[in-house]
Amino acid sequence: MVINTRKFRIEWGHCDPAGIVFYPRYFEIFDSCLSALFEQATGLTKHQMMEAYAFSGYPAVQARAQFMAPARFGDDVTIETCIAEFRRSSFDVQHRLFNGGRLSVEGLVTRVWVAPDPDDAAKLKASLIPPEIIASLSGEPLPA
Amino acid sequence: MVINTRKFRIEWGHCDPAGIVFYPRYFEIFDSCLSALFEQATGLTKHQMMEAYAFSGYPAVQARAQFMAPARFGDDVTIETCIAEFRRSSFDVQHRLFNGGRLSVEGLVTRVWVAPDPDDAAKLKASLIPPEIIASLSGEPLPA
Amino acid sequence: MVINTRKFRIEWGHCDPAGIVFYPRYFEIFDSCLSALFEQATGLTKHQMMEAYAFSGYPAVQARAQFMAPARFGDDVTIETCIAEFRRSSFDVQHRLFNGGRLSVEGLVTRVWVAPDPDDAAKLKASLIPPEIIASLSGEPLPA
Amino acid sequence: MVINTRKFRIEWGHCDPAGIVFYPRYFEIFDSCLSALFEQATGLTKHQMMEAYAFSGYPAVQARAQFMAPARFGDDVTIETCIAEFRRSSFDVQHRLFNGGRLSVEGLVTRVWVAPDPDDAAKLKASLIPPEIIASLSGEPLPA
Repeated sequence: MVINTRKFRIEWGHCDPAGIVFYPRYFEIFDSCLSALFEQATGLTKHQMMEAYAFSGYPAVQARAQFMAPARFGDDVTIETCIAEFRRSSFDVQHRLFNGGRLSVEGLVTRVWVAPDPDDAAKLKASLIPPEIIASLSGEPLPA
Repeated sequence: MVINTRKFRIEWGHCDPAGIVFYPRYFEIFDSCLSALFEQATGLTKHQMMEAYAFSGYPAVQARAQFMAPARFGDDVTIETCIAEFRRSSFDVQHRLFNGGRLSVEGLVTRVWVAPDPDDAAKLKASLIPPEIIASLSGEPLPA
Repeated sequence: MVINTRKFRIEWGHCDPAGIVFYPRYFEIFDSCLSALFEQATGLTKHQMMEAYAFSGYPAVQARAQFMAPARFGDDVTIETCIAEFRRSSFDVQHRLFNGGRLSVEGLVTRVWVAPDPDDAAKLKASLIPPEIIASLSGEPLPA
Repeated sequence: MVINTRKFRIEWGHCDPAGIVFYPRYFEIFDSCLSALFEQATGLTKHQMMEAYAFSGYPAVQARAQFMAPARFGDDVTIETCIAEFRRSSFDVQHRLFNGGRLSVEGLVTRVWVAPDPDDAAKLKASLIPPEIIASLSGEPLPA
């Protein structure tokens, strides 16, 4: 299983009048971590994946997070992201944010692999995750 | 039980390159709906509540949402927000977003009522939710 | 000249640790005000305009703003938006935000009307603003 | 003069339905670049500066930017940030964003150094920028 580990600075603009991260920002941060995980595993940016595959993104169908300790601007946090489970056309992403070595936020986001609907290009349709994508995220190299 | 019902226009800036709401934005929208619910019930804005009470906000400790159908910019959605349960110093907020009459997003956010820590004003501490706040959110008028 | 006047509540999530609006949020707010102005004048949402015209949006090429007084969460502000000038394929948008009756922020954003490039649909190209759009924003009714 | 150079990945969540950066996000990005510049020059994070000085932040009083070329998600951009001019209690920040080696966005933001108002701690007041801060940003080392 491939784990992406990313260091991230909490910025002034992530924080609210209480001086701590406004919690929706964690989900934004997690979203960019997932892009980084895919890129690490496949060697393709999300933009390149959208050109290489009939793929329109992986919208979230379920998201949840626990916020165990607040983070403040100026904090340097580390986020570990991996795929907890793959199914035919959906997958679960686990994010664990550490602040000062302490697990502070844990997220689990279920996403669906979507492609343009063949019957109506303006619509999106859940579709099979390409096996080589699953393989690369599971730690197997992409076939040459 | 007081329910806040809010109409909301999905804007261009809420949406991502797939043309649908970038899901962290739903949590931002829900946050403003909770402020609106408190104001509707208590007659006080969040700013006024922070002046009236030893109260520093209600940070989220858990958040989850299900995204059943995407919303696009230009959509006019309706959000119903209420307190599903009050405990001594925490409470669960339910948000239901309807798009074209159809339940499209459902969120449940657990929050803690915090005040400055008497031992260290720079820190926040969970504290008792004032009974009149609970009463007003439950549909009882604030005492004169 | 059509002026869109919009009331807007400053939310907790718009504000930074100083308790005032994080200034990039003003540009987000202004963006939604421009959509509202177009809709008021043409009767079409931005989404409908993109279906009715070979039109892909109006990206900003220049933006500036003066912040004369801070706004805080809980403040109810009023924003007046109008088109200060139309050119062949670009236009200047003026935004004036009033807080407690006082002009607090003033913005001027130059935007370009773009359409898919006929030579490469993946690219955008500045194109002529439809005359009926200009007419409607100038206060003339759209032809039946 | 100290110049902070920062590499930055344009993320999915920065982009709008046209697939390009939603322009207010540039101002957010620039804000974090300014924090990075101060930290590079002074060795203090913004949070540490607020503890070391009677300093409450540097809100923007004027901001402008020119967007010469769009950036898309997956683009790796480089941003150069420096102080163009210091005055007694305000300063001008210049940001230059390069995408593929090409200057794509240029910003100029005027900010005021504020401290709690001695007459009313809830208010902010423009105050003298500490000379050692100016010296360090100008490329002189902080006195020991």
